[in-house]
Amino acid sequence: MTESLKIAVAGLGTVGAGVLKLLAEQADVIEQRCGRRIEVVAVSARSRGKDRGVDLSTVEWYDDPVKLAAHPGADVVVELIGGSEGAAKETVETALEAGRHVVTANKALLAHHGTELAAKAESKGLAVAFEAAVAGGIPIIKGLREGLAGNRVSEVHGILNGTCNYILTEMRTTGRDFADVLADAQKLGYAEADPSFDIDGVDAAHKLAVLTSVAFGTPVDFGNVYVEGIRHVSALDFDYADALGYRIKLLGIARRTEQGIEQRVHPCMVPKAAPIAAVDGVFNAVIAQGDFVDRVLFVGRGAGAGPTASAVVADLMDVARGRFTPTFGVPAAQLSKAQPSPMEARRGAYYVRLMVVDRPGVIADIAAAMRDQNVSMEQFLQRGRAPGEAVPVVLTTHDTNEAAMQRALATIGAKEAVVEPPRMIRIEQF
Amino acid sequence: MTESLKIAVAGLGTVGAGVLKLLAEQADVIEQRCGRRIEVVAVSARSRGKDRGVDLSTVEWYDDPVKLAAHPGADVVVELIGGSEGAAKETVETALEAGRHVVTANKALLAHHGTELAAKAESKGLAVAFEAAVAGGIPIIKGLREGLAGNRVSEVHGILNGTCNYILTEMRTTGRDFADVLADAQKLGYAEADPSFDIDGVDAAHKLAVLTSVAFGTPVDFGNVYVEGIRHVSALDFDYADALGYRIKLLGIARRTEQGIEQRVHPCMVPKAAPIAAVDGVFNAVIAQGDFVDRVLFVGRGAGAGPTASAVVADLMDVARGRFTPTFGVPAAQLSKAQPSPMEARRGAYYVRLMVVDRPGVIADIAAAMRDQNVSMEQFLQRGRAPGEAVPVVLTTHDTNEAAMQRALATIGAKEAVVEPPRMIRIEQF
Repeated sequence: MTESLKIAVAGLGTVGAGVLKLLAEQADVIEQRCGRRIEVVAVSARSRGKDRGVDLSTVEWYDDPVKLAAHPGADVVVELIGGSEGAAKETVETALEAGRHVVTANKALLAHHGTELAAKAESKGLAVAFEAAVAGGIPIIKGLREGLAGNRVSEVHGILNGTCNYILTEMRTTGRDFADVLADAQKLGYAEADPSFDIDGVDAAHKLAVLTSVAFGTPVDFGNVYVEGIRHVSALDFDYADALGYRIKLLGIARRTEQGIEQRVHPCMVPKAAPIAAVDGVFNAVIAQGDFVDRVLFVGRGAGAGPTASAVVADLMDVARGRFTPTFGVPAAQLSKAQPSPMEARRGAYYVRLMVVDRPGVIADIAAAMRDQNVSMEQFLQRGRAPGEAVPVVLTTHDTNEAAMQRALATIGAKEAVVEPPRMIRIEQF
Repeated sequence: MTESLKIAVAGLGTVGAGVLKLLAEQADVIEQRCGRRIEVVAVSARSRGKDRGVDLSTVEWYDDPVKLAAHPGADVVVELIGGSEGAAKETVETALEAGRHVVTANKALLAHHGTELAAKAESKGLAVAFEAAVAGGIPIIKGLREGLAGNRVSEVHGILNGTCNYILTEMRTTGRDFADVLADAQKLGYAEADPSFDIDGVDAAHKLAVLTSVAFGTPVDFGNVYVEGIRHVSALDFDYADALGYRIKLLGIARRTEQGIEQRVHPCMVPKAAPIAAVDGVFNAVIAQGDFVDRVLFVGRGAGAGPTASAVVADLMDVARGRFTPTFGVPAAQLSKAQPSPMEARRGAYYVRLMVVDRPGVIADIAAAMRDQNVSMEQFLQRGRAPGEAVPVVLTTHDTNEAAMQRALATIGAKEAVVEPPRMIRIEQF
């Protein structure tokens, strides 16, 4: 029997406690599958007294995670603190300095510093494993990096934030407003007290930046992710989406185009029949398009103690088995920088919702603004009439260019008869 | 740079040619991702002259795959011959004897001899890798064995045969009969000239037996898979399924129950809203239920040159990276035999279609036969009337026991007013 793999866990929140619980409950299968035990030798968290439902009596306690990272008896440091800077970053850097493998669930850290951390780890023959950082329990990092390793990936897209997907699903099924559903989600613990990280798309963008690197073998480029959240999606949009045959999802999309690599997070309308349209509630989903394998879809829980712990422990078991690949699938030094494709270059269809004064000539003005930018309208919907008052008007376009669309919307938004800023949702035909 | 991984390929049909094509076209990314090249040093197939669209001029040719298996220069033998006995089996055995790793797409071989082959390989520190044997391009073996390694899996089920799923999808969307759609599928190359392997469920059963081992850590037990194909699914069943809110799918289901391990392949009615219900055409899908991760769904192409080659090459890249686990996730010697749970112990709901003479008392007789076996009816449908003639009658039951259901059907089938053998489709509420 090989010696046990010794781990130090920094951060004992929901996920940290879940990891300890999993390691305790599944000790027998883990040993059988890895040929060795995984043993927690040290932990670190903010409050020592808190009951986490696991026995920590035989484990060394550190108040400071950075000190824990250099614990002499550990083979692996598990970083579950979170955040792109500060304690999390220092903990990971210290662990690598000290020659420890790192397993982390920290997408913010990887989105901002992934390439440097990978280079540092690889220079020392160490792993930085992060299955839990993207799409929770779904083994998508392994799936892409190993399962689809023989493919050139041309696109990866998915539902990467369970909070947003929960809110959008609730809005659709209950007809309620965004603010209302968000308040409920906060009460249920599905959304944070400060929800902006989730609902403004930042969390999904972190994950997308990491996913892009794994899919395309490029350095992590969070700065070039276009990000737009779900605050402006209204109850009305769901009615129209339904009538038009679409569902509304917050998607992260990374695509290799002729211009370079496109990375964007924003609300999308997707056809009801698209497999991803059926992924509701807190579930996440990722679709990868490879040249040989074609489309592969992965669906599962994107957050929560159990699913995230499942992903963290899968990484630990890979390390225990001595099986790990370069962080992003190819050695950090060989990640090849790609030109970012700007958002203005996006091509596709658009859904636009306007509040306009119901009087003759307004629609003709809007149509003219579109025509002037060479944007071709596909459908136009005005339900009900209220002469002289503001009414919602919805239109969809044929495939066009983002820059042209933005110019058309600026012109339309400036018109006196258009009483609210135009709202636009991009249509993706998967 | 490490030396190249040298492979010998036995079998150059659709998949074999696909593998050679992939290795040639992606040589650069493979080398970058593995840190070494994968080099084809020898091949074997039935006809040497055939143009396979790849250059074989620098490769050693063998007429006999078993001789190829002992090729002195190969690190890995890729077996793409197929079949559980004969040349395929001899090739794999010879390769392992000679100290070669084996990568195979052969589900029949693994279903019949998987445990022994795994034991033989492991005794010599060799890999037997078989991602391509189950669900084509979907990285489900890796997903289960590594991605969900920290979980105890309680159930795995899926659409494991693309031919059947294509036929069932066509029957549903066109309203045509089984025989008619099958003939078309044969013309299109989606079904073999002798289709029984696919449509009688044997191929799906092979895959299920392998999947069960990986999911539960048990020796492969093909002999205890209950198998029922799709020949008896009629156009009528699709009408009724639609009315009742179901889709019809041929599923493979493996479940840990109180009785032991249940393995079964048969047509199922699944709720339209179940994610698997939306997987149409030649696509495959697998859902695994783990205790920490909860449900994870994988969808992708289950056959074809590209997807299957993608899976074969993923295995080769694992070997090239020196990353491989025991064949079934735990060492063959530690696979723990489980009691098979007999089909008679299945619990669930049932859909039954009968052709009965339309006259008073017949339905009462049927209801009595059900009641006598304690089977509780949920719905009853007789559309249209034709006094004195045979009409279809459909009923569904509440959850009941397979043995009781079979006894009730035997009684019903023996009645003079029931003019065709009763047809039954099990309802699965995922």
